[in-house]
Amino acid sequence: MAIRRSARRAPALGDVIEAHARLRARRPLVQCLTNVVSANFVANALLAVGASPAMVDNPQEAAGFAGFADAVLINLGTPTEAQVASMRLAAEAADGADKPWVLDPVAAGALPWRGGIAVKLLSYYPAIIRGNASEIIGLAGLEGGRGVDSSADPADAVTAAAELLEHASAVSASGAVDHVVGRVGDAGEIVLVRVGGGSGLLPRVTATGCALGALSAAYAAVSHDPFTALVAAHVHFAVAAEIAADSADRPGSFATAFLDALDAVDEAALAARARIEAPETL
Amino acid sequence: MAIRRSARRAPALGDVIEAHARLRARRPLVQCLTNVVSANFVANALLAVGASPAMVDNPQEAAGFAGFADAVLINLGTPTEAQVASMRLAAEAADGADKPWVLDPVAAGALPWRGGIAVKLLSYYPAIIRGNASEIIGLAGLEGGRGVDSSADPADAVTAAAELLEHASAVSASGAVDHVVGRVGDAGEIVLVRVGGGSGLLPRVTATGCALGALSAAYAAVSHDPFTALVAAHVHFAVAAEIAADSADRPGSFATAFLDALDAVDEAALAARARIEAPETL
Amino acid sequence: MAIRRSARRAPALGDVIEAHARLRARRPLVQCLTNVVSANFVANALLAVGASPAMVDNPQEAAGFAGFADAVLINLGTPTEAQVASMRLAAEAADGADKPWVLDPVAAGALPWRGGIAVKLLSYYPAIIRGNASEIIGLAGLEGGRGVDSSADPADAVTAAAELLEHASAVSASGAVDHVVGRVGDAGEIVLVRVGGGSGLLPRVTATGCALGALSAAYAAVSHDPFTALVAAHVHFAVAAEIAADSADRPGSFATAFLDALDAVDEAALAARARIEAPETL
Repeated sequence: MAIRRSARRAPALGDVIEAHARLRARRPLVQCLTNVVSANFVANALLAVGASPAMVDNPQEAAGFAGFADAVLINLGTPTEAQVASMRLAAEAADGADKPWVLDPVAAGALPWRGGIAVKLLSYYPAIIRGNASEIIGLAGLEGGRGVDSSADPADAVTAAAELLEHASAVSASGAVDHVVGRVGDAGEIVLVRVGGGSGLLPRVTATGCALGALSAAYAAVSHDPFTALVAAHVHFAVAAEIAADSADRPGSFATAFLDALDAVDEAALAARARIEAPETL
Repeated sequence: MAIRRSARRAPALGDVIEAHARLRARRPLVQCLTNVVSANFVANALLAVGASPAMVDNPQEAAGFAGFADAVLINLGTPTEAQVASMRLAAEAADGADKPWVLDPVAAGALPWRGGIAVKLLSYYPAIIRGNASEIIGLAGLEGGRGVDSSADPADAVTAAAELLEHASAVSASGAVDHVVGRVGDAGEIVLVRVGGGSGLLPRVTATGCALGALSAAYAAVSHDPFTALVAAHVHFAVAAEIAADSADRPGSFATAFLDALDAVDEAALAARARIEAPETL
Repeated sequence: MAIRRSARRAPALGDVIEAHARLRARRPLVQCLTNVVSANFVANALLAVGASPAMVDNPQEAAGFAGFADAVLINLGTPTEAQVASMRLAAEAADGADKPWVLDPVAAGALPWRGGIAVKLLSYYPAIIRGNASEIIGLAGLEGGRGVDSSADPADAVTAAAELLEHASAVSASGAVDHVVGRVGDAGEIVLVRVGGGSGLLPRVTATGCALGALSAAYAAVSHDPFTALVAAHVHFAVAAEIAADSADRPGSFATAFLDALDAVDEAALAARARIEAPETL
C-alpha cells in the first residue's frame, strides 16, 4: 500500500535535469488506460520522450500488466464499462506493487458518473493527480473540499490541489501557468511550484493535457519522488511547447512540431528555457 | 420536439461569412459520438475552427451532456453496443432540449445493422444529415426512397437528399462538388446549393468527412437555421482544403496543412475562394 | 477452407514491382479490426498506398463485411470482448470465402489472454502472420515451438516464423532487418527472404508496425500468393521509411513524411532503394 512520499526539497532546475537524464537512460514502460481521442497522441508523446507506451486497458490483462509496467496512467476521458473495471484493477495492482500511477480526472467534477469513478480510484493512492484547474477544483469538491464550483480561478485551483494531497503525493493544475503542489521534507510541508512557459497553441491541439499526464507517469517511474517527477514533466512539456511554437503558428503544424520538440528537449534546452518560479510554502 | 426550420433565403456568401464570424465569437461546445478512427482528427478539426469538442459517448453521461452542449454530432463509423445506446439517448436529449444534432450515417445503406440504427435515429429529428453520395442514397433507400442502389451518381444523391428533408432540416451529399439541400421561406420551398472547390487530397485522408460532419454541428450551434449552417460548413471546409493544397501535395502533409487551414480561414479567404453556385429550386 | 499457398519462386524485386503496380491499379478494400491507438494511422497508411480501409469491427457486421472486403486485417493491440468476437467471425468468414487475412499478434506471447485468442484465430488459416521478433517467437511458443521465451534474437525469430508456416502461408518478423518466410514451388520448400532498409525512426512512431500489417493485407488482396505479398509490403514500407528519413529526423515530422512517402513510392523508388537479400532455403 502506497504511502505519501515527500520530496527531499522543493523541485528546482537541477532536479528536473537529473530526472530528464534518468528518463532518457531508463526508457520506462508506461501502461496507459486512456481515452480514444488521445490514445495515438499519448503513445507518440511517450515515444518522443524516450519512454515505451503500452495501451493495455482490458479487464483480463490490466492488473497483470500493471505489475510489469514501470508506471500506469489512468485517464477518464472516454470511459467504457470495461475500461472502468480495468482502471480499478490496474490502480489496485499498481498500488499493491508500489508502482506509481497517475490519475487524470478529465471532467470528473462536471459529470457525476465519472466523478464517482474518480473518487473510488483515489482509494488506490495515485502518486500524481494531474488536471486542468476546473478538473482539480471539481475533484476536490467531490471529496468535500471547498472548490465545489467549476471556477477555473488559479487561486482556487491551488487550494483544491493542496486538499487533494490527502490522496496523492503530488497534484497539478494546468493552465497558462501550471500550479504544482507536493510535500517536502520530513515534516511534509506543502509547497507550491509554479511552472511558466508553454504556448497558447497547446489547448488548440486535442489530447495535449492527456499527453502531459502520460509524461508525468513516465517521470514518476524514474524519479525519486512524485513531486519532482510532476514538476519535471511540466517543465519538459512547457519547454517543448515553446520550441514548437518557434517554428509553428497554427494547430496542425504545432502538433507535429510539438512531438519533434518533446524528442529534442535536452539538458541545454531545459537550462535555457525552464521557467520554474521560486517555491512557495502553503 | 424539433420542427423543420427553413432558411430565410437560399444561403449565399454573405450568410456564410456571417455564420463564420459567429462561430469564431461563440466557440460552441460540440458533443461528439463518433468513430474510433476519427475521434482525434474530429476533435482537432473542431479546435482548429475555434469550437470546443467533448467526446462524451457513454450511456451514463450522453443524455445529460447533450443538454449542456451547444450541438451534438452522431457518426455511425464504428458503432459499439454501448455507443449505439448513447446515440439514442443523446439524440433524444438533443431533440428534447431543441439542440441541433447532426447525423453522419457512415455506410448506413450498405450495412443493414447500422442502417436500422440510422433509421431509428431519424425519429429524433436531426437538424442535419451529412454523408457522401452513396450514403445519402442508401439512407433514403432504407426509408423507402427511390435511391435503393448504392450508386453515387450526384443526380440520384440530390433526389435522395431532398427525400431525407422529411426527417431533417438540411441534408448534404459530399463529393467533388457538394450538394446541399434545405427548405427556404415560409412555404418551405426545397432548394439545392452546390458548393465547389475542395481538393482531391481530401478523400486520401481518413476522417475528413467525419470532420465535415462535426464542423456542420459547430455551425448549427451558432446559425439561424441548419441549411445556412450546412452550407457554411461545406464552404469553410472546401476553402480550407484549397488553402492546404497550395502547400501540400501528398496526404500526410495535407492532413497537417488542412488543420492549419481550418484555423486560417477568415472572411477574406471565404470571400476570395468560396465557390457557391446559384441556388436551384427543386 | 484455406489451403497453404506457395509462391512460384522466392519473391524478388520484379515481383515486388509487379505487386505494387497491381495495388495501385486495383485499390483493394481492406477490412481492419485493429487497436484504438492505430486505427487512424492504419487507415491513413492504407489510403496513402492507394487502398481503401474500412474499420468494421463489431460482431453484427464483421462477418458480413469480410465477404465483401478484398482482405482482412486482425490486430490484437487493444482487444475488447466485442472485438474479439468480431475477430473470430471475420476470420471465419474470410477463411470460408477464401479471402486472405492477416494476423498481427501484438504482445500475444507476453499476455496469456490474448495469447489464447491468437491461438484460436490460427485455426482460421491466416494468409499472413506479421509481428516483431518477440511476438513471432512468443506465438510460436504458445503453439509448442521452441521459441517459448521472449527473446528477440533474429535467429530465434526465423525458427519461430518457419514453425508458424504450419498455420499461415507467409510469416514475417520485423526488426532492423525484416525476416520473411514462406513456401516456394510445388514441393513447398521453406525460404527466408531478408528485407533491409527502413529507418530507426519507425519504432519511434506508434502504430507503424500495425500499418505494416495493414499494408500486408492490401498486398495480399492483389498478389499471386501471400509470400510475395508480404515481401512486397515489407519492401514498400522500408523504402517509404528511407524516403521519409531523407527529410525528417524527429518522430513527429517523420510520421507525416512517412505517410507522404507511402504515397510517393513508385517503381523507380522501389528499383533504386529496395534491399532484398538473396533468398535462403531453410
